[in-house]
Amino acid sequence: MSDKLSFLVFGAGAVGSVYGWRIQVGGGNVSVVCRSNYEAVKKNGFTINSEIFGSHTFIPNNVYSSAKETVANGQEYDYILVCTKALPNIEDPTILLKQIIKSNKTTIVLVQNGIGIEEPYIKAVLEKDKEYKRRGEFALNTFDKILLSGKVESIVEKHLQRSRWFKLIWNASFNPISVISGQYSANDLLSNPGTRDLIKKTMYEVIKIGEAITGGPLHDEISGANIPDYYIDRIEIRNTIVVPSMLQDYMNKKPMEYEVILKTPIEKAKVLGIQVPILETLYSLLVMNEKRNLQ
Amino acid sequence: MSDKLSFLVFGAGAVGSVYGWRIQVGGGNVSVVCRSNYEAVKKNGFTINSEIFGSHTFIPNNVYSSAKETVANGQEYDYILVCTKALPNIEDPTILLKQIIKSNKTTIVLVQNGIGIEEPYIKAVLEKDKEYKRRGEFALNTFDKILLSGKVESIVEKHLQRSRWFKLIWNASFNPISVISGQYSANDLLSNPGTRDLIKKTMYEVIKIGEAITGGPLHDEISGANIPDYYIDRIEIRNTIVVPSMLQDYMNKKPMEYEVILKTPIEKAKVLGIQVPILETLYSLLVMNEKRNLQ
Repeated sequence: MSDKLSFLVFGAGAVGSVYGWRIQVGGGNVSVVCRSNYEAVKKNGFTINSEIFGSHTFIPNNVYSSAKETVANGQEYDYILVCTKALPNIEDPTILLKQIIKSNKTTIVLVQNGIGIEEPYIKAVLEKDKEYKRRGEFALNTFDKILLSGKVESIVEKHLQRSRWFKLIWNASFNPISVISGQYSANDLLSNPGTRDLIKKTMYEVIKIGEAITGGPLHDEISGANIPDYYIDRIEIRNTIVVPSMLQDYMNKKPMEYEVILKTPIEKAKVLGIQVPILETLYSLLVMNEKRNLQ
Repeated sequence: MSDKLSFLVFGAGAVGSVYGWRIQVGGGNVSVVCRSNYEAVKKNGFTINSEIFGSHTFIPNNVYSSAKETVANGQEYDYILVCTKALPNIEDPTILLKQIIKSNKTTIVLVQNGIGIEEPYIKAVLEKDKEYKRRGEFALNTFDKILLSGKVESIVEKHLQRSRWFKLIWNASFNPISVISGQYSANDLLSNPGTRDLIKKTMYEVIKIGEAITGGPLHDEISGANIPDYYIDRIEIRNTIVVPSMLQDYMNKKPMEYEVILKTPIEKAKVLGIQVPILETLYSLLVMNEKRNLQ
């Protein structure tokens, strides 16, 4: 066994494989759990073409086909990175992890979008270990150092929930609308005045909930009123076609992350007495579209 | 030439052919303009299977393939029934009619759904004839008598706009949602709690505009609060699958009537300062869905 910190990447798609790679470069021992791509990764590793880091092959230290196999191997991990999609409506995300986490030493890192995704993990971990939270800060700073060694721009965010809400403004608007509109890219949605306006109005609903929950503006420098234009500018300044991740999932006949992107925010709005008719409309329509798409 | 009143049915689909038939039975001389089905109708007439009237063949007195041909024939009509879909976004509905109407004697009957459909006709007619309105009541009562002779249940409605809004509550909710949800029947939409709720909320937005515009409740016996359940009960009490007309159009790759069903009501809400976020969302999404569908 090496003295290196050990990492398990759970869900080694586009996001997970790049994180695993850079953590290995930064000095970590990296195992991955691959489901659909196990054979290819076991044989050839990952071929990564990154705009930032260039083209490389990443050979993980261990490749597993399932959580079960990871457990059989007997290794304990310092960190488990959860890079799967957040689909609490399809499976309890903590079930597999509970099998892998053997002791207190493992830190869970959620590399996922959405609101409320931490709650099932916190519940699962607190059942085992009441002291968990206290050790969090040390684990966080160690992880930050590894990422920086791997040349990943890393920020320890003091207002994590605020950042989540800020990111959600993008996710809860472009994502569902790109699917329900009849499958259009973000660029197409912005070229059409009707959907451009709809995207902005959806964003304002998210901003309203996020500001109420976090108790202040969602960004230090961009006011709530200007956030929609900030996101729109970011797309329009680029020369590439932006296909939101939900649309990619929809086209690949995969389940979409609408529970953590839409449903949880809507529920939080309801508790606060905030009206979010557009988010509710998008959510209802999206669920039916997925039902049709996956049938 | 006969002494009978002459009728021209413009757009002889399911609605137009039944009206033409019953008017002929009621004593009218009935010409029809058929576009896609001209050859078949010229040869065999219409085969009509009506729940109310049974199965019959309706042979119109004249069959024309276009407005131009109607004009070439030289006949003047007492009534022109407009039974086409209302698609002001695609063509000015009055252009063809202006060619056919030769004198003051012709009455235009709009057999169509939606809000604001009369406006272009009123404008077109008033350009020609400032006295038009005064003769309306006589023409209306004569038409009513012909329908009753043809055993069509006919009511001279004193509050026409109120009836239009009442009908719109159905049309503006089930129609767009059935398309945007991923093509579901009205029954399916009602079985799913999310879309059932969405349909009711959409209906309440329409009711709010309609009540503000007409200055009172939209029905003598059903309060605004109870209208959604009234419409839902009407579907659930039947044993048949209800496929809203917009969904039929969508599936047949035909343009949908969203201008008169959604856009005009939204514009009227805006003038009155009424918030209709759901209708606006549905409209934007529907336009994009049609764009994708007809491309």
